Amino acid sequence: MHSPANILDVPRSVTTLLAAELASRRADVSNIDPRLGELVDHLITFTLQGGKRLRPQFLIWGWRAVRPDSEELQPALLRAAASLELIQTCALMHDDIIDRSETRRGEPSTHRAVTKGHAGQGLSGDGDHFGTSLALLLGDLALAWADDMFTEAALALGRAKEAMPVWRAMRTEVLAGQMLDVATAAANHSDPALQAADAMAVNRYKTAAYTVERPLHLGATLAGGSEAVIAALRSYGEDIGIAFQLRDDQLGVFGEPSITGKPAGDDLVEGKRTLLLARARADLEGMPELAELDAGIGAVADAQRVGRLTSIIAGTTAVQQIESCIAELHTSGVAALADPSVDRAAATALTLLAAAATTRTF
Amino acid sequence: MHSPANILDVPRSVTTLLAAELASRRADVSNIDPRLGELVDHLITFTLQGGKRLRPQFLIWGWRAVRPDSEELQPALLRAAASLELIQTCALMHDDIIDRSETRRGEPSTHRAVTKGHAGQGLSGDGDHFGTSLALLLGDLALAWADDMFTEAALALGRAKEAMPVWRAMRTEVLAGQMLDVATAAANHSDPALQAADAMAVNRYKTAAYTVERPLHLGATLAGGSEAVIAALRSYGEDIGIAFQLRDDQLGVFGEPSITGKPAGDDLVEGKRTLLLARARADLEGMPELAELDAGIGAVADAQRVGRLTSIIAGTTAVQQIESCIAELHTSGVAALADPSVDRAAATALTLLAAAATTRTF
Repeated sequence: MHSPANILDVPRSVTTLLAAELASRRADVSNIDPRLGELVDHLITFTLQGGKRLRPQFLIWGWRAVRPDSEELQPALLRAAASLELIQTCALMHDDIIDRSETRRGEPSTHRAVTKGHAGQGLSGDGDHFGTSLALLLGDLALAWADDMFTEAALALGRAKEAMPVWRAMRTEVLAGQMLDVATAAANHSDPALQAADAMAVNRYKTAAYTVERPLHLGATLAGGSEAVIAALRSYGEDIGIAFQLRDDQLGVFGEPSITGKPAGDDLVEGKRTLLLARARADLEGMPELAELDAGIGAVADAQRVGRLTSIIAGTTAVQQIESCIAELHTSGVAALADPSVDRAAATALTLLAAAATTRTF
Repeated sequence: MHSPANILDVPRSVTTLLAAELASRRADVSNIDPRLGELVDHLITFTLQGGKRLRPQFLIWGWRAVRPDSEELQPALLRAAASLELIQTCALMHDDIIDRSETRRGEPSTHRAVTKGHAGQGLSGDGDHFGTSLALLLGDLALAWADDMFTEAALALGRAKEAMPVWRAMRTEVLAGQMLDVATAAANHSDPALQAADAMAVNRYKTAAYTVERPLHLGATLAGGSEAVIAALRSYGEDIGIAFQLRDDQLGVFGEPSITGKPAGDDLVEGKRTLLLARARADLEGMPELAELDAGIGAVADAQRVGRLTSIIAGTTAVQQIESCIAELHTSGVAALADPSVDRAAATALTLLAAAATTRTF
């Protein structure tokens, strides 16, 4: 037996648990056919390299906000928390196919890594399509395994009936958010106000709900929390989740590649339609830079031209507007923790996590 | 309230239940953003058009083999059965992306249908990639919703703990089977014996287990069946499932397009590496037709050249070998139902379903 995990050591405990769980799933797949083990290794490496483990931490602090009684983590609770990282694996693998991203966390994205393997092993057929097909299926496997882990954990905790509607809502939201991202990109509004509204809808569902609000909601529900504590945590979660995504958008333009693991100005290269971009475009109305920005977004790749777009955005008030937005959301989110239903130690931890999520540099 | 569904009317009851369930899920998604409703309609139409409902029927007869006491179907049991159709929706949507299939059930495949909508609505960007991206996400949604439906149903039946390991095995198997299909196609063995072994491994996991064996296993487990009845049903299921796939392979070469809803010789156009093809290749060893067949598979599309490949295969003993295989599997599968643990009425129904699954023309 492992010694019980400590509440302050969630990221490491999650990684340890995922390593054991995925080794067992790899064995299942290798029993079906030994050749599949190597392919599943892409899923395992990807998942174990994931860093911050924010979603599991939020789930566990959602639980702790209701049940502050123990420093030890029950294995089933840790299992429920860890399952969120497999949802994330699916979301990122499929997102990278959709965005045709070459890299993720400083490494080749999964479809690219599988394509490289295709060439290396002298396989036949279209290597790019091979990579995409297998990354698609590996993402499906991660989604199915996430469901298995969460459901088993919720059953073990005796709260499956209560938690399943929240789990269902979370997965529907993140997938709907991804669909909305694709649909709004294709709609390609030129009106900055419509563009801003679209960006916020995508932020809300694709990232915010599933990164902060729903993990907290799941944790509190698994703990049998009251309506009051769930409302307070969700209110915090919605604000901090959106602030988290707005920080991500800033990093997508101004982030340091050696820290973010993504190319400089990655969002500009990909043509991501963020709130930052919408605000910059509003600011540039009637100016020649607007046409230059619109022509370049999603169409440039070389460092110099990406740098030019970056400096156009930096020259607007958009960056400061987004910083103000993040600060306001941070303040209102943390204020929701003052509700007496929320345990004080959990409120302190969530205040620290809010700062980490909104001021991070990667 | 609807009147209780009758055991002999499973396909229609499943479709009715899916229509209600998916309307409710569509409302969830439309609440997130009204623009998403139309996209989800692709998932709904696709799922409701699905015809034979074989998997739900096997799940329900698995239950009935253990509990022959009522002609009425509990709503939760029907719900568990219907969830299998959403797994199928995911599998087919993702398969069509992987196989780059233009059509499915006589209609445009989902990614093609979404691409057509992209052009029709004058959206911007790459329409093909738009279609692929949304079909990928709609498949994910179907997989997540299948999990929701099954888990809720298993909880309502009070058998979630027992059923979840079977549910987990089924989804891992079907996804592993799809991965194996992609991997073995790329490995592209020219040795007919290796090719035959690969084809059988893919048949076993991609189709057989998840079409017959696991649905029966799920139904019997939800009913609290003994080890004996589960073993008998699984033995039947493995044989009939493989026979089902071998029939599919025959139809993929010799099927009538107006009945199958697929183009003539579709498997030859797609380059599907079936047992039928492996056996034909073994038969043609040393003959000029082997080179002609190998050059044409997956590389021809016009009717005349597809017709030529079809007649090369028809000229071998492969068709008769596969028919013998199907007949043997049918016989051994049905024989397993003689086990006294299996209810006699259920055995009769499963005997009829075995005939339908292995002699079908679409």
